[in-house]
Order: sequence, then C-alpha cells, then structure tokens
Amino acid sequence: MAMINFKDIRKKLLKGDFSGLLGLLRLNGSRKKVIIHPAEVAQIFDPLPDDTSVQAFIAFGAEQRLQVFPYLDIFLQKKIIRHLPKERASYILNEILSDDRNIFYSHLKGVELTFFLEFLNEENKKLVHDIMGYPENSVARILNTDFASVYESMTIAEASEYLRKTHEDTENVNVLYVVDKNGRLLDDIPVRRLVLNEQHKTIAEIMDGFVVTLNIADPKEEAVAKFKEYDRASLPVINKDNVLLGVVTIDDVLDVAEQTDTAAIQKFGGVEELDYPYVKTPFFSLIRKRAGWLIVLFLGEMLTATAMGYFDKEISKAVVLALFVPLIISSGGNSGSQAATLIIRAMALKELTMKDWWYVMRREILSGLLLGVILGTIGLIRISVWQELHWFNYGPQWLLVAITIFFSLIGIVMWGTLSGSMIPIVLKRFKIDPATSSAPFVATLVDVTGLVIYFTIAASILKGTLL
Amino acid sequence: MAMINFKDIRKKLLKGDFSGLLGLLRLNGSRKKVIIHPAEVAQIFDPLPDDTSVQAFIAFGAEQRLQVFPYLDIFLQKKIIRHLPKERASYILNEILSDDRNIFYSHLKGVELTFFLEFLNEENKKLVHDIMGYPENSVARILNTDFASVYESMTIAEASEYLRKTHEDTENVNVLYVVDKNGRLLDDIPVRRLVLNEQHKTIAEIMDGFVVTLNIADPKEEAVAKFKEYDRASLPVINKDNVLLGVVTIDDVLDVAEQTDTAAIQKFGGVEELDYPYVKTPFFSLIRKRAGWLIVLFLGEMLTATAMGYFDKEISKAVVLALFVPLIISSGGNSGSQAATLIIRAMALKELTMKDWWYVMRREILSGLLLGVILGTIGLIRISVWQELHWFNYGPQWLLVAITIFFSLIGIVMWGTLSGSMIPIVLKRFKIDPATSSAPFVATLVDVTGLVIYFTIAASILKGTLL
Repeated sequence: MAMINFKDIRKKLLKGDFSGLLGLLRLNGSRKKVIIHPAEVAQIFDPLPDDTSVQAFIAFGAEQRLQVFPYLDIFLQKKIIRHLPKERASYILNEILSDDRNIFYSHLKGVELTFFLEFLNEENKKLVHDIMGYPENSVARILNTDFASVYESMTIAEASEYLRKTHEDTENVNVLYVVDKNGRLLDDIPVRRLVLNEQHKTIAEIMDGFVVTLNIADPKEEAVAKFKEYDRASLPVINKDNVLLGVVTIDDVLDVAEQTDTAAIQKFGGVEELDYPYVKTPFFSLIRKRAGWLIVLFLGEMLTATAMGYFDKEISKAVVLALFVPLIISSGGNSGSQAATLIIRAMALKELTMKDWWYVMRREILSGLLLGVILGTIGLIRISVWQELHWFNYGPQWLLVAITIFFSLIGIVMWGTLSGSMIPIVLKRFKIDPATSSAPFVATLVDVTGLVIYFTIAASILKGTLL
Repeated sequence: MAMINFKDIRKKLLKGDFSGLLGLLRLNGSRKKVIIHPAEVAQIFDPLPDDTSVQAFIAFGAEQRLQVFPYLDIFLQKKIIRHLPKERASYILNEILSDDRNIFYSHLKGVELTFFLEFLNEENKKLVHDIMGYPENSVARILNTDFASVYESMTIAEASEYLRKTHEDTENVNVLYVVDKNGRLLDDIPVRRLVLNEQHKTIAEIMDGFVVTLNIADPKEEAVAKFKEYDRASLPVINKDNVLLGVVTIDDVLDVAEQTDTAAIQKFGGVEELDYPYVKTPFFSLIRKRAGWLIVLFLGEMLTATAMGYFDKEISKAVVLALFVPLIISSGGNSGSQAATLIIRAMALKELTMKDWWYVMRREILSGLLLGVILGTIGLIRISVWQELHWFNYGPQWLLVAITIFFSLIGIVMWGTLSGSMIPIVLKRFKIDPATSSAPFVATLVDVTGLVIYFTIAASILKGTLL
C-alpha cells in the first residue's frame, strides 16, 4: 500500500483538478490492482466543502461511484443524489448493497423520504417500504437482503458452482445460509467449510445444526449484544415463521454500538441525544437540544433559592454558614454523579439489573459514609488551619462551625451517593432509560436536599450559640 | 435451536447435579450437532457462585473445557486453572486460540503472571513473553498468531488441499494471508474467493493487491478506528519489516471499543477508570478510584469558600444575594457539562480536532449567550412573580436584584459553555485525555469563577442601594 498524500489531493481538488484523485481510484474488482480504498476517498472528502466533493464524485466512473457512495456521510449522499442526473442517481441507489440502501433511507423522513424513494425501481421501492414499516430502532433498518443461500442436498461442488454463477465477490458470500424449499432457515455455514471439506460431501454433512438468529423486529441493541456474546461477524434475521429475511453484518452493528454509547454519553452530560454529529448539527437545533434540559434543571434548581429563603434568618445571623454552601452542595453533586456513572454503565453492560438494588444500596451507603468522613475531615482541618494561622476569621464559634461542616459533609456525601446510585435503578423500574439520570440531574436533586440537610445540622449544632 | 431453561439448569447445578448442563453441551465439531453454544454456558455460570461454576466446569470433557473457557470472565478463569490438576490446566492454556491466551495473560501482573506462565509449554511461554513486551494498550495484546497463510504461486486447488491438511475449522481460516518466502505480507484474500473462482487459477491471479494492516505496536484504539473505517472482520498485524506476525479479529476489538467507552464514561462522571466491572471491583479499590478525584474536586471547590469569604461584607449587607448562589453556580456548571460532553465525544469520534478550536469557540460563545438569555429571563420572571404575588419578599430593591440575576446568568452560562468546550481542547493540546475534563471538574472550575462574576455584577448594579 503506497503512502498517499491526502493534502496534495485535497489542494488539487479545491482548484477543480480531479486528476490526482481519479488516478488513484481504480475499480475494486478481483483482478484489478487498487491503490486507494473507497473509505480513504471518503476521508479525503471529509474536510472539503460539500460542493467540491460533489463535483469530484460526479467525475468518477459509474462503478467507482457505487463503491465510494456507502462510505460518505448522509449529508453528502443526499447532496450527490440531488446533483446527479436522475438516471445516474437511480443507478447508485438501486445497485448499492441493500444494507447500505436501507441505512440511507432510514435517515430520511416525510417529504424527503418520498422524494428519494422515487429514484428506486419498483422492487427496491417495495423492499425499502417494507423495511420502513419496522421501528426505527429495529434490526430491519440495517438489514442486508443480498445473502447467499444453499440447500442441504447440494454437494460442496454443486454449491460452489451455484455461488460462482449467482454471486459477486462481496462480503455477502462469507457465510452461507442453508434453507428449505420454503425459505426457512436450517443452519448457517462459514464459506471456509466449503474449502476445508472434500468436494463430494453434501451441505447436510457439513452442517452443525447450531445457528444464532435475530428476529426482524428485535431492537438493534439486541443485535449488538448477540454479536458480542457469540463472537460472530454476521447474523441471520428471520421472521416469526423462521423464514430467512436477510443478514445483519458486524460493520453496521459497530456503528450502532457507537451511536448507542454516544447517546448515553450525551444524555449523561445533560444534553438530549443529537441526531447528527456535533459539527453537522445546525445551530438552532443544537440550542433546542440543550435548552430543554437546561431549563428543566434551572426550574429544579430554583428550589434551592426557596430552600435558602426558608433559612434566611439563620444566614443573616451567621453569614459564615453561607460561605460554605457551594462547597457543601457540590460535594453532594460530585459524589452523586460518580455513583450514577458507575451504576448506569454497569446496567448498560448488563452487569447489574434492577434486582441488585439491595446489594447496590448497601455498598453505596457504606461508600458514601467512608467518602463523607474523608471529605469531612479535610474540611474540618481546612477551617482549623485557616483560623489558627489567621488567614480567615470564622468568628469565636469557629470550632462549632467546623464541626457543622464535618457532619454536613458526611450526611450530604452519603445522600449524594445513595441518590446517584438509586435514581438509575428507579428510572429503569419505570421503564425510563437510566442514562436520563444525568450528572446535572443528580446534582440538582442533591443540591436542594443537601441545603436542607446542611441547615438542619447547622441549626441543631449551633443553636444557642450562633443561631 | 431449542429453547433452553437456564433457571432449571442453574437450580440443578446449585444442588451439585451437573447432568442437565452436561447433557446439553456437546462437542462443537463440524459433524456433531450442538444444542448449546459455549457462550450460553458462560451465561448460565454468570449469576452462580464461583465454586459451583468451577465444579461444573471440572465435570466437562477436555474438548468442552477448551470451548467454554474463553467465554468465561477472568476471575472464573483464574479460579478454574488453580483448581484443575496441573496437567489439565496446562492443556487448556496451551490449546486455546492464541488471542484468547494472550488476552488471559494480559490481565495478569507480577507474581500472578509468573505463576500462570508455568502452565505453558516452552513455545507458548516464549510467545506470551514476547507479547507482554508490548505496551498494555497495543494490538499485540489481542494478537491471534494462528493464521492461515498461502503463497502466490499456489493454485486454488493446491491452497485448498494445504488448508485442509494444516488447519482446523475455526475463524482463523476466514481470511488467507499471502506471504513471500520471508514471511512478508503481500495481500489478504477472503476465503470465499477460493470458492468463487475456478480451481486451476493461482493465488496471484485472485489477489487485489490492496491490504489494510496494523502495526504490532499500534494502540488498540487505532485498530478500532481501522475496523470501523474499512468494514473488516479481521486485520493482519505486521512489524516494521512488513513481516506478518498475526491477526486481530473484530470480536476482540468490539470488547476494546466497549472498554474504551466505559473508561470515557467513568472519567466523565469523575471516577478513575475501573480495571474490572463494578460488581467485581473490591470495595476498597472502588473507594480509592472515587476518593482521588473527589478530594481533588473538594480542594478546588474550597476556593468557593475563599471567594465567598472575600464578599462576606456584601453578603451580610444583602443576605438576599446568598439565596441565589446555588442557582447561579449550578447553571454555569450544567451548561459547562453540556458543552464538555458534546466536545469530548466529538473529539473521541474524530469529528473535531484541536485545529477546530476557533470554530468551536465562536459557536459556543453564541450558544452560551442565547442559553444565558433564556435562563436569565426565566430567573427575572421568577423573582418578579414571587415578589408581586407576595410569596417571598426580596426587599424594596427587588427589581435591581432581579436584574442582577438576569445579567449574572448570562455571564455565567456563557462562561460555563466557553470553559466546558475549551477545556477538553486545551487538555488535548497538552496531550492529556480530553475526557479528564469531567462534568464535576468543569462544574468546580465554573463554580469558583462564577461566584466572582456574580458578586462583581451585583456590586456594580447594587452599589449605592443595597451595597
């Protein structure tokens, strides 16, 4: 593989000179030597303005277009289809692998969907239409319907002959599916088994009778889990009558896993899940995704003002108490968001289920107690040192203030840890995604209750002295 | 695939009755019918006490042990090896696929590593030793050294004959590697191409000359990125002389991707990355992982007490200002953690690089301004309504207080958004993982500066009236 200078090619492209790129891109057939992979063309396009990429793409040959198209992002794909003469656009959308086609159409909705469906021939239109009838989150949306099937009665020689006649050299032929006359799935066979066995053996003789399947309506996450569990590179998809409908391949599943984790991370950061990458999300759509949660949290956090208002007599008597409010509540929020992170991720990876709540609770109460004592001790030392060294004067009752901080930190860290660990489990119980209990969400809840804990402890310790 | 009642099997196992499980587990050879997949045995074991699982495992036949072992978690694997007679334990560790073996040993360190190395024969010991010389994070640690290689000059018939004689029916034969006499990699060929072409053709004739490779010292994340980019199920690993050393398969990479995301999520939640799943992490190790960051954040947050102390005159004159402290600083923290989440994830997915800092900054300042105006307006309305309806009395200067809150929220949300988006980029610049800028970390930074912004704005608006 020769080193390709992406920068030079991009510079040329920006000047409207496509020769550099076209020289590299050859047909990826079994005989021809290829210098650049279609995925690398997509990489070259990525930082370029869309118009330059569209122009360069149009300059490709028909087969080159077919190869590069699936690797482009959806925005560029749509733009290209709109810019190509209808006939050429139709060729691409009809001829790409069915999983790439299904994924393209799964990005579309409403008028746009109708517009792009017009590029398909009747057969493909029907296929895409069927797929779109399944939930957005189902494996149907990433289905590859171009699979290789064989019959039990064939010999290996016959099956090989049949595959040579009916199939191109694509990943679709990596696994063969054994079906009966009604299309019902009997087994899957890796194509290597045709090479590793004598040619006269029958397919029935090399079957192992064990096949892991997905149902067409299964959520994509189910597919991710099965791929991980069984270490497969592709899995057959059946309907309830066990009829083989298509195949899901691991490359599409890898994308799903990435999207799932992105959604979880964004939710945890207190942002609604983005539909597109950050750089591709329009400004006002980004604002909308953020403002929603931010407003909810703000309204929740307003209760802190109410809570503080309830204690305003105490504050005016002992302003020193106000000084520690941010320190106290943030400690609750931080320990809460730690606990929430651990539990949410463990639940997402199925290491924990709702049934484990009692185990989690005991563990987290104990963790909270220990962590609270650690922070409380640091707080106690901090106040004493500042006071003794005359860096700040917390008043004649400084030791009582320090003790108040000590016990408040223990109470609040325990409370934060407990809330952070239990909220995801409770949400799950009510069938809400546990990741909704974002770090900011937990922090807000703990802030409000934390203030009540703090001032209550202060009132009981400082009564008769400061208060 | 018959439905298997996992619960019944587990109940029997707990009573020491292994017959249910043993009846299901047959040899997964090419001829035998299999009723249960080894991955499902691991699933059955998962919720059981380790001792029960070890006993059941010991009751398996030698081949069954080989198949099930790689699917078990590292804790159970270690326990099993310790409990089996040395000869049988050695058989497992020597005969499992080399990637499974390398992953097993990659979990070990120090004395434990030495102990378990003793189970290997000289050849495997040397292989594992070599692998352990590479960084923990390199593809070497997930290397599969049992690959199938062929020569250019072979015909397809000869290559097939050679494969039948030298290789078992495993995933290792899914892709063939064409090497020269010195073991240098020339090309990779999917095994399907042997079936899809006539038997008399030579390997040279069905090569396409395009091969994507990994270097033995490449970080695992590099492998994840290449698998995603090129849609492969396995990738060859070479040294700097282009000699083929082994293969990395996608199932191991999927695990790496999951671990990487788990680490990112945990870091973002303000927890040090756990080495093992939550449920398997010992209590005090869990405390250590959490206490570190919690203490750092606590020390940072102490600056809020210092900042508040600096303004204690203002607070005692206008206690009303203290009431809004939690609301103000949490708004900064929340908007900051939103921005940090979006930017960290976009950088992890390579959608953004450091070079984009100016684009991000402009976008986030504008977002912060808009989000600040939204929250500020809500705050302004809240105070006015409470005052007008006599739900709370903010004093005669309530309108000035409300205006202070309005401008403070704009300032703080802008500041939070800007910090949250820039900190990950700055960390990356200094070669620190951007995910280290956790939600709690950003919140703490914004808390301290937020207080200064708030009281400064308050001082300038309320000077001569309240202050």
